Amino acid sequence: MISRTRVGSFLDQSSVQNFILGVILFNAIILGMETSAPIMDRVGGLITLLDQLCLAVFVVEIAAKLFARGVAGFFSRGWNIFDFVIVGISLVPATQGLSVLRALRILRLLRVVSVAPSLRRVVEGLVNALPGMGSVFLLMGMLFYIGSVMATKLFGAHFPEWFGDLGRSAYSLFQIMTLESWSMGIVRPVMEVFPYAWAFFVPFIMVTTFAVVNLLVGLIVNSMQDAHHAENVERTDSYRDEVMGRLANIEALLKADGAKGRPD
Amino acid sequence: MISRTRVGSFLDQSSVQNFILGVILFNAIILGMETSAPIMDRVGGLITLLDQLCLAVFVVEIAAKLFARGVAGFFSRGWNIFDFVIVGISLVPATQGLSVLRALRILRLLRVVSVAPSLRRVVEGLVNALPGMGSVFLLMGMLFYIGSVMATKLFGAHFPEWFGDLGRSAYSLFQIMTLESWSMGIVRPVMEVFPYAWAFFVPFIMVTTFAVVNLLVGLIVNSMQDAHHAENVERTDSYRDEVMGRLANIEALLKADGAKGRPD
Amino acid sequence: MISRTRVGSFLDQSSVQNFILGVILFNAIILGMETSAPIMDRVGGLITLLDQLCLAVFVVEIAAKLFARGVAGFFSRGWNIFDFVIVGISLVPATQGLSVLRALRILRLLRVVSVAPSLRRVVEGLVNALPGMGSVFLLMGMLFYIGSVMATKLFGAHFPEWFGDLGRSAYSLFQIMTLESWSMGIVRPVMEVFPYAWAFFVPFIMVTTFAVVNLLVGLIVNSMQDAHHAENVERTDSYRDEVMGRLANIEALLKADGAKGRPD
Amino acid sequence: MISRTRVGSFLDQSSVQNFILGVILFNAIILGMETSAPIMDRVGGLITLLDQLCLAVFVVEIAAKLFARGVAGFFSRGWNIFDFVIVGISLVPATQGLSVLRALRILRLLRVVSVAPSLRRVVEGLVNALPGMGSVFLLMGMLFYIGSVMATKLFGAHFPEWFGDLGRSAYSLFQIMTLESWSMGIVRPVMEVFPYAWAFFVPFIMVTTFAVVNLLVGLIVNSMQDAHHAENVERTDSYRDEVMGRLANIEALLKADGAKGRPD
Repeated sequence: MISRTRVGSFLDQSSVQNFILGVILFNAIILGMETSAPIMDRVGGLITLLDQLCLAVFVVEIAAKLFARGVAGFFSRGWNIFDFVIVGISLVPATQGLSVLRALRILRLLRVVSVAPSLRRVVEGLVNALPGMGSVFLLMGMLFYIGSVMATKLFGAHFPEWFGDLGRSAYSLFQIMTLESWSMGIVRPVMEVFPYAWAFFVPFIMVTTFAVVNLLVGLIVNSMQDAHHAENVERTDSYRDEVMGRLANIEALLKADGAKGRPD
Repeated sequence: MISRTRVGSFLDQSSVQNFILGVILFNAIILGMETSAPIMDRVGGLITLLDQLCLAVFVVEIAAKLFARGVAGFFSRGWNIFDFVIVGISLVPATQGLSVLRALRILRLLRVVSVAPSLRRVVEGLVNALPGMGSVFLLMGMLFYIGSVMATKLFGAHFPEWFGDLGRSAYSLFQIMTLESWSMGIVRPVMEVFPYAWAFFVPFIMVTTFAVVNLLVGLIVNSMQDAHHAENVERTDSYRDEVMGRLANIEALLKADGAKGRPD
Repeated sequence: MISRTRVGSFLDQSSVQNFILGVILFNAIILGMETSAPIMDRVGGLITLLDQLCLAVFVVEIAAKLFARGVAGFFSRGWNIFDFVIVGISLVPATQGLSVLRALRILRLLRVVSVAPSLRRVVEGLVNALPGMGSVFLLMGMLFYIGSVMATKLFGAHFPEWFGDLGRSAYSLFQIMTLESWSMGIVRPVMEVFPYAWAFFVPFIMVTTFAVVNLLVGLIVNSMQDAHHAENVERTDSYRDEVMGRLANIEALLKADGAKGRPD
Repeated sequence: MISRTRVGSFLDQSSVQNFILGVILFNAIILGMETSAPIMDRVGGLITLLDQLCLAVFVVEIAAKLFARGVAGFFSRGWNIFDFVIVGISLVPATQGLSVLRALRILRLLRVVSVAPSLRRVVEGLVNALPGMGSVFLLMGMLFYIGSVMATKLFGAHFPEWFGDLGRSAYSLFQIMTLESWSMGIVRPVMEVFPYAWAFFVPFIMVTTFAVVNLLVGLIVNSMQDAHHAENVERTDSYRDEVMGRLANIEALLKADGAKGRPD
């Protein structure tokens, strides 16, 4: 009989991990080839078969992990949920919205991140930086909502394509925030109808750019402090230990001296 | 009779604060719905009524605050002035420039910032960073004024739409500073008439970009130092206290020794 | 008779300095008004007269400074040369290239920088940051020269407007470095003739962007270190003095003890 | 007979180094002149001759270096390989792809970097920063591959010019990442066919921008730490040595005291 621990230790073997990594990369190449019409014309059947095979390997791997760690243990790790969802997407029968679901299969390449520790650490670092920026994100969200409502009310009637409803306004404001064609493409045409439109858009650009800059500054300061703190603590601690050791030594000598002195 | 302190403590209750926060968010959703023509066609009356209700809540809240803290006490806090102006805008009878005043009502969502302490702190942090950048802002203002006067004199006659007067030139230079279509949209056409126009625009881009970069650098250095200083002072101080304690201890031992030694 | 020191101390009076500052700002407004055709139509004569008056004040001020400090003393300070050149430009008789010389008069507003100490410090800070970036600037210059020669040779024949000679290529590459319309405006049309043109432009963008980013990083690190160093040195030094004082105290006590002990 | 060491010390003379530097700069000017049709019409033969002469100098220099240091010694230094490849390119007979090979000759100007120590240090600094960013680069590569496969599958059929195959998609996504005409040029047209295309492009922009920002943050933190570390270690070490010296002194005094005390 196959025990849970045996399956678990089998999955943790580095050769098995490397095999999975290999399958992920091989699958990514296969899915890349699928985008080429001439390749698909000649060996389309083989490509599809290999893709199915890779998918089968992933399904077996996740099933084994589920068996080895139990449902609760499996889903307690974020990266396992990540793998589960990515592989799960490929198993949904693609009846409608077919092309989108087929396109999403390439997301499996992201499994490399969950398998390779160095990449996992980078992504975890990026994700951990997000909560610290929560307040600024909330502020940006509010600015976009306020900006969208105002732009829709002010310019929606004359420029339905750009500011026709909240969604279109939000998209246009995002484009304006990235500074793409904001003036020649959008604000100058708008100013031909509403000459004071710049009084809405220029402050919007300034405020959102300032907020983005502050996100960046926050990121820099945070990671600098982390790096700095770690190094500093270590160095200062070794230094403090040395000084403290010497001081304790002197105190001990003095006390011994005092003790010796007394019976004198 | 209702006393000032009673009203004040009533307003400070967290349940009242949360109720106000809820009304602000509800009002923001209502104002968002107002931008949708189909929703307004069906339940426009209800939407307008709910908006009036929210406004009434805000007016009552501000009146209560004014009563509780007195006029001088109320206006001594910047956030109260902020609330007062934002709510006041909605009470101005919208006869002319109607759409603009109606559009400004969504600014009430910004009251969230004055109610939620975490957002208030972020905004205060951003605003506090501004004075330190005063000199660079002043320089940038001068650069824009100089640039606008020069551009108007040099290119105003041939390109009235872009550089026809000081305002248009300032707007165009702002667009150029954001690098939006600066070359294909503006400088290349200008260079067809004035082949040396690049000698004005390229340095302008370099200087303003350099100034913006310096604003950014200043921001980073400032917030880094604040963060760094706080951490450093705390750690070094605890370390210094420990060393100093030990040294004082040794000195005391030595003095006791000396005192003991003397009568010997 | 008027002595040099008298004139010098007169010029250094804060009331005189403020008067000059006022004239500079007044002159800037006057020159701004000159750009407006309706104002010039009505009070053009007055505007021109006031401008001449302001210029006369500047000439007298600089002449007085030259007299007070002597030619060598005057030109030994960078800011004096700056003032001299800016005022000098306005005195050149504007026969040809008239509009350019007239437009340059607004540069006088920059004299505010040489008069206001806080602005002077900011500009000196910016200028002092430049030499540290010399090597990166040199590298960027080389990259632009290499890029211009290559672009002219490769694409000059087919796209004379963009890459016809070294100057045009340099301008187009500067536009590409600022990412303005680089793809839709330039590289995609070029790629229709030379399908591998991306192999020149994409690396060019990456390398120059990387170099610019390094300039920025250098700036940040430099100003951070300056700020950091100043603070750190001060704090650590006061701490070290305290520790050293205590240690010296202990040593003195010990020596006194030893000396007392010997004759025992 | 000419010995290896003699040739080696001849090459290391600063006058020889400066001569080579001069030839490199002269060659760069010659190659710049070659781009000008009127100059080539008049003195084209001279220009070509001078270019050949410069090339001859480089070939002789590299041959001498190869002789002096031996093949293994020569190719063990990265900069020598760099010089060898750059000069080697010019010697390839330019039969086909003629214009490209001729254009690459200007890369010889990069030899300035290998000759001038200050520039060499800057470039080495930039190159050394790269490995630390390896993981982020790998992630960006994966994002681009995933994005290209998805874009090709989703939009390739309707927009073959932008997303026809993996290469075109990657180029278009690079353009989108640089924010050049991403909305007006590409995403808005795509959204006319696929209204939900923004759900692919907006997250792509956010994720890649965030990754680029993290590269920047990493760079800043790294170089800051290097600079900081160096300064800190030096200062703290001198301080620690002083404290430790004093403490050792006190201990010695105490021990001497104890030793003296004992026979008492």
